[in-house]
Amino acid sequence: MSARAVSRYPVPQIADLPDDIQARLLEVQEKAGFVPNVFITLAHRPDEFRAFFAYHDALMLKEGSLTKAEREMIVVATSGANDCLYCIVAHGAILRIYAKEPLLADQVAVNYRKADITPRQKAMLAFALKVALESSTIGDDDFAALREHGFSDEDAWDIGAIAAFFALSNRMANMIAMRPNDEFFTMGRIPKGK
Amino acid sequence: MSARAVSRYPVPQIADLPDDIQARLLEVQEKAGFVPNVFITLAHRPDEFRAFFAYHDALMLKEGSLTKAEREMIVVATSGANDCLYCIVAHGAILRIYAKEPLLADQVAVNYRKADITPRQKAMLAFALKVALESSTIGDDDFAALREHGFSDEDAWDIGAIAAFFALSNRMANMIAMRPNDEFFTMGRIPKGK
Amino acid sequence: MSARAVSRYPVPQIADLPDDIQARLLEVQEKAGFVPNVFITLAHRPDEFRAFFAYHDALMLKEGSLTKAEREMIVVATSGANDCLYCIVAHGAILRIYAKEPLLADQVAVNYRKADITPRQKAMLAFALKVALESSTIGDDDFAALREHGFSDEDAWDIGAIAAFFALSNRMANMIAMRPNDEFFTMGRIPKGK
Amino acid sequence: MSARAVSRYPVPQIADLPDDIQARLLEVQEKAGFVPNVFITLAHRPDEFRAFFAYHDALMLKEGSLTKAEREMIVVATSGANDCLYCIVAHGAILRIYAKEPLLADQVAVNYRKADITPRQKAMLAFALKVALESSTIGDDDFAALREHGFSDEDAWDIGAIAAFFALSNRMANMIAMRPNDEFFTMGRIPKGK
Amino acid sequence: MSARAVSRYPVPQIADLPDDIQARLLEVQEKAGFVPNVFITLAHRPDEFRAFFAYHDALMLKEGSLTKAEREMIVVATSGANDCLYCIVAHGAILRIYAKEPLLADQVAVNYRKADITPRQKAMLAFALKVALESSTIGDDDFAALREHGFSDEDAWDIGAIAAFFALSNRMANMIAMRPNDEFFTMGRIPKGK
Amino acid sequence: MSARAVSRYPVPQIADLPDDIQARLLEVQEKAGFVPNVFITLAHRPDEFRAFFAYHDALMLKEGSLTKAEREMIVVATSGANDCLYCIVAHGAILRIYAKEPLLADQVAVNYRKADITPRQKAMLAFALKVALESSTIGDDDFAALREHGFSDEDAWDIGAIAAFFALSNRMANMIAMRPNDEFFTMGRIPKGK
Repeated sequence: MSARAVSRYPVPQIADLPDDIQARLLEVQEKAGFVPNVFITLAHRPDEFRAFFAYHDALMLKEGSLTKAEREMIVVATSGANDCLYCIVAHGAILRIYAKEPLLADQVAVNYRKADITPRQKAMLAFALKVALESSTIGDDDFAALREHGFSDEDAWDIGAIAAFFALSNRMANMIAMRPNDEFFTMGRIPKGK
Repeated sequence: MSARAVSRYPVPQIADLPDDIQARLLEVQEKAGFVPNVFITLAHRPDEFRAFFAYHDALMLKEGSLTKAEREMIVVATSGANDCLYCIVAHGAILRIYAKEPLLADQVAVNYRKADITPRQKAMLAFALKVALESSTIGDDDFAALREHGFSDEDAWDIGAIAAFFALSNRMANMIAMRPNDEFFTMGRIPKGK
Repeated sequence: MSARAVSRYPVPQIADLPDDIQARLLEVQEKAGFVPNVFITLAHRPDEFRAFFAYHDALMLKEGSLTKAEREMIVVATSGANDCLYCIVAHGAILRIYAKEPLLADQVAVNYRKADITPRQKAMLAFALKVALESSTIGDDDFAALREHGFSDEDAWDIGAIAAFFALSNRMANMIAMRPNDEFFTMGRIPKGK
Repeated sequence: MSARAVSRYPVPQIADLPDDIQARLLEVQEKAGFVPNVFITLAHRPDEFRAFFAYHDALMLKEGSLTKAEREMIVVATSGANDCLYCIVAHGAILRIYAKEPLLADQVAVNYRKADITPRQKAMLAFALKVALESSTIGDDDFAALREHGFSDEDAWDIGAIAAFFALSNRMANMIAMRPNDEFFTMGRIPKGK
Repeated sequence: MSARAVSRYPVPQIADLPDDIQARLLEVQEKAGFVPNVFITLAHRPDEFRAFFAYHDALMLKEGSLTKAEREMIVVATSGANDCLYCIVAHGAILRIYAKEPLLADQVAVNYRKADITPRQKAMLAFALKVALESSTIGDDDFAALREHGFSDEDAWDIGAIAAFFALSNRMANMIAMRPNDEFFTMGRIPKGK
Repeated sequence: MSARAVSRYPVPQIADLPDDIQARLLEVQEKAGFVPNVFITLAHRPDEFRAFFAYHDALMLKEGSLTKAEREMIVVATSGANDCLYCIVAHGAILRIYAKEPLLADQVAVNYRKADITPRQKAMLAFALKVALESSTIGDDDFAALREHGFSDEDAWDIGAIAAFFALSNRMANMIAMRPNDEFFTMGRIPKGK
């Protein structure tokens, strides 16, 4: 693959894509100001693209007690554990924007224990990392530890399912060498009004 | 959770499920003679259910140069590496049936190097396990090793994407303590006509 | 080595073996209906064969508070941790027969935490796996954990010694590529009377 | 267990032991000038004792192309990898004596790559450590690497079987907290005649 | 320790520090516009402070064929492997400034294989990471691999010594919970003139 | 490098070294009766030499509640974990001499849990090994565990800083293949007066 390619695989022309995928790309472009490479690179396989984003939306856009920033923390922490450059950089940017905390993403990606987050959020990330790294050892104690911080079992499913979905996402990004858009590296680093 | 429960989470009554999910369950029941627990346990979250099986079908039912048995080998080998009881047992059964080889699933789940498969299939599983276990180190050499065995880059995507999807699936099954149906343990162990 | 060979090493003709080893092989053949490959492959070295089975019998046939099924659980769980195809398949069969539980062996081989066994048996397997995988960290706490479940220190020796003996056995089987007899894959999967 | 105990388990009085075990202890005492703790601690279980030393003798005293010092190198290197204090110290002493090299045992226990041994011996220890630490990945290439250094397949069995036997021995010693006799720490450190 | 503390340990008042340490702090403040926390937190122990920065300067400021940016790449890559928040963030900033490449530090911290660097620089970082993570296995082959890319043995010492020094630095920062100054997170992210 | 070389790198003639380094070498030679190889091999880089020994002295010679023998225990235990032959052998000798316990160094290098030391010293070594092996997970609980044994936070810094400094030292010794002087292997093995 050539240097600075956004994927090992061919990247489709937007005009050649099915209408629904074109629509999704235009929607995100309107919102973000650019098309994140995860959309354009996964569009190489339209059916997988549709399932991927349906799953993503079911987990990341649903109602529930986790805030949007907390969901992104789970993404960033588990992507850090999986050494996934795309997801750390892209979701790090989203986390900075949702949390309005310019330092948070770098902290969470490297070591959540040192991040400026609550003990409840640290318990959430400990569970997420166990799902990411040694899911066969999860047991009743892990659910009990979440309950001590006020998480319901439905919250536990949310946390674990996000960690599981990004186990997939990180492996796809690593395999196809998905490159983060340059824009993500700086987004949200300077809080508005400063 | 009680002993022999099929999930840590409530299992819905089929009659209470949305029509499309009911239809899917009835279809698989007709085909298999029972409802595999992955359907009934993931139906606890209909939106995630729909995305999960859309993704599954996009990878496992699509056209391509990998045979159905080879796709199941990838599932069984990577689920073995992730110690996922549900997927080893359920997809082991499917592998036995597709391959018409009653010993193959146990071999592949434990150690593909010792399985009765071709060198090409061993190369396929080596790539799949690298995606499953250390995806950040995948590089040009890994794609070259597949090409030496006649795999195209599209085949490589298939192999890696199946490994990535079951990274998700294994983590979900481990987290919710999904129990394999008893039927799977013996399916396909005695080849027809014997 | 050729495909489907039972060992990397030459397999002796039974008639060429010393009398005591011939007798042992005939005894097991009478009992099992076939000669398990561990006998015929290790007979390549008669002195090591004799010591191996003397050790095996001292641990697996002795009196003690562990049931025969529990001893086989230890074998299957630790062989699972060591990815030993022969021992998982052969002792899995024996476990199914002793326990009269057709699902147990696959559960224990993959993840004893998810098996249909008692908390006492889970404590037993936790100790066995610690001996198998990180014996240098064993300390007073590990013996205390066994005592809480009613295990004496002599029981602890039994558990640990079985784990230690199969550390040897798994490594020998892996090194010589010992192949499980086809019969083992299906033995005990359908409980008698069903 | 009390400080400086030689085992977590009761140590039998020599006079109370079966005759054959008494004889073995007296024989080793005559030769070494003291009774190594492996004899007195394992005598707690006479049947296991007999099998253990029969196996040991079959591997360590047999004819073959490996020298006695080379066999002890395998013991020391693999015991180092398993963090087994008893075997490193006791077999380190024996290695110093057989090799007449006072520095060798400490080198081999820590890092065989830095030891004053031949490339052939380094290949031997690389194979032994693979059997000790990741036996499921052993394949044709590992045997080929030994053959390049003139080792036959029977030599390979010797190397692997010693590594496998001490996988057992290290785990037993770690579990029962077998303490090395004080004498072993200094034996063979000053070559005779100096 | 309180949230947002810069260290678990007391942080000295600059006026209370020995003259030479005060001078160093003022010098760096003049240059950087602020005092990096590594200076103020390690000043808790003046003698160790002096040795730490003497060592740092001997490695990072010396003449040699490695550019300043390359030295910082080694720091960032090995600190990434050690999950050291302070060093990733602070030296990431310095790397961005030296290299005039705003994306480089995040790439190198997560996965140097995916970074916009030369094959020669990737070989340099492979060696550095081996020193950081498994130094006991370094051998002639590793030096030969560097020579193929034109690195001399003195360059190898530079690379390895920087990796070794930050093995110390990362552990100190992790132990005392050294917090990166807020300034570092954004420094060098927007190239001058843009 | 040639067999028995003391370093992969050129070893300077003492007469060619800067005066201060010559003085240090003569001082240690007078005290020990020989020049330990760490001095002569690191003198290849005078500036790094000076910083290395300044750091060493700041940690190992300072006042504090840890005894000199306890500091050497930390060196030996963490060097054991890093498989550093030079530091295990050289500091093992120093530990034997300071502690006047000829068995202690071998015990601590292999497995501090089995060493003839106090529970307080075991807690000290558990903390040191955590700094050596997984420093990013250190948290309040680890400091609390030390306090339970009467260690102050300044003692914790001492323990952690010694572990951190030898993380550097072990990596340098491994990289340059620093060979322990023959003298160290036997020093202190026979207590004076015996």
